[in-house]
Amino acid sequence: MQLSGRNQLPGEIIEIKKGDVVSEVVVQVGEHRISGVITTTSVENLNLKIGDRVTALIKATEVSFIK
Amino acid sequence: MQLSGRNQLPGEIIEIKKGDVVSEVVVQVGEHRISGVITTTSVENLNLKIGDRVTALIKATEVSFIK
Amino acid sequence: MQLSGRNQLPGEIIEIKKGDVVSEVVVQVGEHRISGVITTTSVENLNLKIGDRVTALIKATEVSFIK
Amino acid sequence: MQLSGRNQLPGEIIEIKKGDVVSEVVVQVGEHRISGVITTTSVENLNLKIGDRVTALIKATEVSFIK
Amino acid sequence: MQLSGRNQLPGEIIEIKKGDVVSEVVVQVGEHRISGVITTTSVENLNLKIGDRVTALIKATEVSFIK
Amino acid sequence: MQLSGRNQLPGEIIEIKKGDVVSEVVVQVGEHRISGVITTTSVENLNLKIGDRVTALIKATEVSFIK
Repeated sequence: MQLSGRNQLPGEIIEIKKGDVVSEVVVQVGEHRISGVITTTSVENLNLKIGDRVTALIKATEVSFIK
Repeated sequence: MQLSGRNQLPGEIIEIKKGDVVSEVVVQVGEHRISGVITTTSVENLNLKIGDRVTALIKATEVSFIK
Repeated sequence: MQLSGRNQLPGEIIEIKKGDVVSEVVVQVGEHRISGVITTTSVENLNLKIGDRVTALIKATEVSFIK
Repeated sequence: MQLSGRNQLPGEIIEIKKGDVVSEVVVQVGEHRISGVITTTSVENLNLKIGDRVTALIKATEVSFIK
Repeated sequence: MQLSGRNQLPGEIIEIKKGDVVSEVVVQVGEHRISGVITTTSVENLNLKIGDRVTALIKATEVSFIK
Repeated sequence: MQLSGRNQLPGEIIEIKKGDVVSEVVVQVGEHRISGVITTTSVENLNLKIGDRVTALIKATEVSFIK
């Protein structure tokens, strides 16, 4: 299985802030932290927990740059 | 100046694939590569070039996870 | 510091609806109102308050049109 | 017909930069300019032309803020 | 009225999970279910209810593929 | 391997419009067509061809509704 999403950053979940409809999941990727907001339904369906190894997936069209 | 975007990844531009309307900019961030698609107008306005130090900016709502 | 985001609309915060994980921030930009949903963590990190001058930032790839 | 998109900005098309797959459409909204990147297929299906009255549509989850 | 959004999927609302700031709306489209997260303000402005006929709207730049 | 993306629509590629930087991929999903714009690099990396079985992936936060 391959994904068209150009950016795939593997790491470990260090924080889950669970909300009523959406939750924030924070992943340590090397020295960086990546925060993602996904539905709480997805957090439960994937049974995401602190310490899980996951890959953050980001479409190239969603990236901006600061110079 | 501060940005609400939760994910800010500093790195160096290693590739620019310039297109008619949009361009792909690839940034080396530590051991990872982040690809972003932005307008060619923005590439020109910011005068982006290989070797430039930039920060990739990603909104938390744009991040998905694979487990 | 320059941003690749093509759309930057300066205005004043007129409403903040704070939620458990995400919050809605409404900005008056001339005669228009721009609503943005960002993480509550970002609202707190930037210490956003009613009356603050901010700039709404929107990537060109996120804009659709109705005719 | 009503749309859930919170941000609807009416204006006039002042520029169309047509590309092979996507095109950039620039709309004058009061004193601001809004750039959107949509498929060239949509530009043709909607028969978008300079001078057309259109409404730019932006989902609240796509808006970031700079302070 | 026409929309530039390339993907328009008509269906019937089968579930609304109302949150403090955003809500999840699930629409049955033929044999598939489409989940959307929109502001709770929009759910109320459009007076969305289970059983309503709506059309899910998705911009082409937001679609990824798995092979 | 599981994805947090709530909307996963399996189908068959019926059209690929290849551009210099991004390409449009059209997938027949039952009676509907889903168009996605991804990087041409991804089209080549995944070796996407007409007739391929793929799954369109859409994050819930990217879905709007029309009523």
